[in-house]
Amino acid sequence: MLMALRASLPGVHLRAWARRPEAAAVLMERGFADLASSRLEEILPGVGLVVLCTPVETMPALAAELVTLQSLVAPGCVVTDVGSVKTTVVTALEDAFARSTYRFVGSHPMAGSERAGLEAARVELFQRAACLITPTLFTEDTALATIRAFWALLGCRVLEMSPEEHDRKVARISHLPHVAAAVTALAALHEDPSAAACAGNGFRDTTRVAAGDPALWTGILLENRDEVRASILAARDLYNELLAILDNVDDRALRHFLQNAKTLRDGVV
Amino acid sequence: MLMALRASLPGVHLRAWARRPEAAAVLMERGFADLASSRLEEILPGVGLVVLCTPVETMPALAAELVTLQSLVAPGCVVTDVGSVKTTVVTALEDAFARSTYRFVGSHPMAGSERAGLEAARVELFQRAACLITPTLFTEDTALATIRAFWALLGCRVLEMSPEEHDRKVARISHLPHVAAAVTALAALHEDPSAAACAGNGFRDTTRVAAGDPALWTGILLENRDEVRASILAARDLYNELLAILDNVDDRALRHFLQNAKTLRDGVV
Repeated sequence: MLMALRASLPGVHLRAWARRPEAAAVLMERGFADLASSRLEEILPGVGLVVLCTPVETMPALAAELVTLQSLVAPGCVVTDVGSVKTTVVTALEDAFARSTYRFVGSHPMAGSERAGLEAARVELFQRAACLITPTLFTEDTALATIRAFWALLGCRVLEMSPEEHDRKVARISHLPHVAAAVTALAALHEDPSAAACAGNGFRDTTRVAAGDPALWTGILLENRDEVRASILAARDLYNELLAILDNVDDRALRHFLQNAKTLRDGVV
Repeated sequence: MLMALRASLPGVHLRAWARRPEAAAVLMERGFADLASSRLEEILPGVGLVVLCTPVETMPALAAELVTLQSLVAPGCVVTDVGSVKTTVVTALEDAFARSTYRFVGSHPMAGSERAGLEAARVELFQRAACLITPTLFTEDTALATIRAFWALLGCRVLEMSPEEHDRKVARISHLPHVAAAVTALAALHEDPSAAACAGNGFRDTTRVAAGDPALWTGILLENRDEVRASILAARDLYNELLAILDNVDDRALRHFLQNAKTLRDGVV
């Protein structure tokens, strides 16, 4: 995000907070930020926009810290986050920021990859990615407009929906694919890892995201567990349907199943 | 394959048979082959190597036709196929070619994509792809050496295994990923196709192969249905395991599940 902001907004002063001082030092050395530190007191003075980019579980505590330091930031400082789950996160953050100077709007850019760390950073990461923003009854119009403009500036297609609709859709379009990649990797290789030598691009692509960070994804899946559970149940039932189709050697039903999947997949650009 | 052969063997005379005369005419016009026709009698005279590239269901009938025209080909003409299933196909083709001039060895290059037709052709398709070849007790050494050399020439990593081992491994590493992509596309979008607008690269990659030809894949999955059934059962059971983990909000078990999947996936280059 820092790389993309530097490219889109060459004149803007960019600051980065990182939990570990060594991480902050690397950001400074490589010129990713004009100021990077592990001390929020150094980062916050005069700041007008904050983007929380930590695992979803740690956001509420970080928000509470921001509130204790609210006298430092610009009045009406806008805060957003990039968490993959919205209902619980937005509720917790709206709560944390209520009656503070901060104005919060939840976001979820559908960008990233299975890789982590600075080496995986790409300046074009957000170009043409969908970014879901999730206003509620408590969201101020000007803050919403700021966040809309922020993601559009990074090249995102901005979509607006409630936190609940976000969690329902994203459980199916993002969390389920992650689970499916893990299940497929395990079912394919657990008993006979030597089959890995036979892998083609079909396997590689279908399971790519299973290489993502297990701790990060444990947090995401548990935070959205009701909707994730519903999407896993749907997938489980489809596997049962396929077992019945194979037992009946039902050529027509199998073709129909695969055709329906193809039609839905062909609709995604 | 014609493009790749043209690049690897610039001097060799390439011929292509196609079921439809119009398809053969396009191959000729675009220079993919030195001779293309829908009439086997025109294609076969003097031929030393035949590669069957049709859906698996139609291979036995095509083999029977080749046998009726065996007086046309070079003596000891070697035949292979590119079918995605081997036990049933190799048995049927060994049977068809028994006591003929042809010497058969089964192959399965792990290359291709969800796309079909000449526009999807890529000269580098086989570079570094695994190609599984499946000799049996009936395979002649010289024919096996020819087929090994043929795929190596196209840039493949050649692996040798029995047809049964092929079907067991490929059910897991290729057929299951196809099924998983279809299941994920359906579970994600069947109820609410509008979620497609939120798709990121995770969804795109995990479901890419679901855009493949439903008729082709119906044939493959039914032809290998015992092994495909076993791999689907394994996936179904893993989904059930995940449902229990979510019901128990079992953080440690979920992390362990995702870590095991990541370790297996990280082992695939």
